[in-house]
Amino acid sequence: MSLAERYEPTERTTLTRARERATYDQETVHAILDSAYLCHLGYVRDGAPVVLPTLYGRVGDRLYLHGSTGSRPLRMAGEPDPGLPVCVTVTHVDGLVLARSAFHHSINYRCVVVHGTAHPVTEPAEKSAALDALVDHVLPGRAADSRPGNAKELAATAVIRLDLREVSAKIRTGGPNDEPEDLALPHWSGVLPVAPVYGAPVPSDDLAADIPQPAYLSAR
Amino acid sequence: MSLAERYEPTERTTLTRARERATYDQETVHAILDSAYLCHLGYVRDGAPVVLPTLYGRVGDRLYLHGSTGSRPLRMAGEPDPGLPVCVTVTHVDGLVLARSAFHHSINYRCVVVHGTAHPVTEPAEKSAALDALVDHVLPGRAADSRPGNAKELAATAVIRLDLREVSAKIRTGGPNDEPEDLALPHWSGVLPVAPVYGAPVPSDDLAADIPQPAYLSAR
Repeated sequence: MSLAERYEPTERTTLTRARERATYDQETVHAILDSAYLCHLGYVRDGAPVVLPTLYGRVGDRLYLHGSTGSRPLRMAGEPDPGLPVCVTVTHVDGLVLARSAFHHSINYRCVVVHGTAHPVTEPAEKSAALDALVDHVLPGRAADSRPGNAKELAATAVIRLDLREVSAKIRTGGPNDEPEDLALPHWSGVLPVAPVYGAPVPSDDLAADIPQPAYLSAR
Repeated sequence: MSLAERYEPTERTTLTRARERATYDQETVHAILDSAYLCHLGYVRDGAPVVLPTLYGRVGDRLYLHGSTGSRPLRMAGEPDPGLPVCVTVTHVDGLVLARSAFHHSINYRCVVVHGTAHPVTEPAEKSAALDALVDHVLPGRAADSRPGNAKELAATAVIRLDLREVSAKIRTGGPNDEPEDLALPHWSGVLPVAPVYGAPVPSDDLAADIPQPAYLSAR
């Protein structure tokens, strides 16, 4: 990475279209990653692509993904080294962009695409920190307010690491780009904003009455 | 497909874990697909996976994706035949599942994974119907209330088709599955629901004052 804190573009992180929407700025990439917790993990199995939704955490310039030691991509990343080529994509949808013409309809979004090779995390301290990061990524503050994994649980959980090196973000904002000759058409034009909204927390049936709702929950 | 309207499981749509969360029911699959509009498209380029967010539409048992004729996966699907092996995944997050133990934290979600080979759509009537389906998938009713693509726009737009054949859905609902010995721990436990919520439509600056907000917008 350059001193400007920018990911170096590579051939595959260079957009072929809408290049003005691309950014390699580290701070922007981290902000997009940190405001989501679900990614889509792509890998190749028997020559064909597989895309699965999964949670992730970030620690510095590393992404961590986890799963059962029995899960296919986690097994594949573990054996044999040198790891599993993956693509991890994180997308926020921010709005539906309605143009007068069908052609110019679009979506406002923020997206990060990470290419690289995932490696298993076996060192206990890194693995434990990765699992904390995964829990805290979903709900900051939650890792410290839950029982940490015991030896059996840690043994049943595989963690893989993906370094943030070959990374790009793509962002679209703003209204529709209608053709000048379409402006007089009688179709509504604009943006319908959309965002994930959290509802009221639903306590477990067996939750003791004296356990208050934690502040980090209300903060969502 | 069987008479029971169920997608036939294959080796790669058979889950290795949490099999009770899998379903191959056609109606369930269609409902998950129809309540989203963004998918993550996976394909293989130079042996490595690529995952990109993109819009889709559904017509019967076919998914349609589109993009610029210059976009890489659309070019790859078009030449050479017999098409591009893809995996298309659609995921809804419905809630954050907070267990007393870090290990049992989870996500409530609905997800559909489609494996198959994408083929270019070149027949004009199918292509036009596919583009209408794409617009209407984002906002039902919108295709009829926008200017259809002209010859130049249609020529600049590539459409690919993916048959729904090798398909699985995976669904998690309900509260956390805490270990019996963890129930007395002093940690809040339950579910934080989450759903996409649409804000007030933002008209384009250049929208004529006499164009009312359409009913299909308010319905979101």
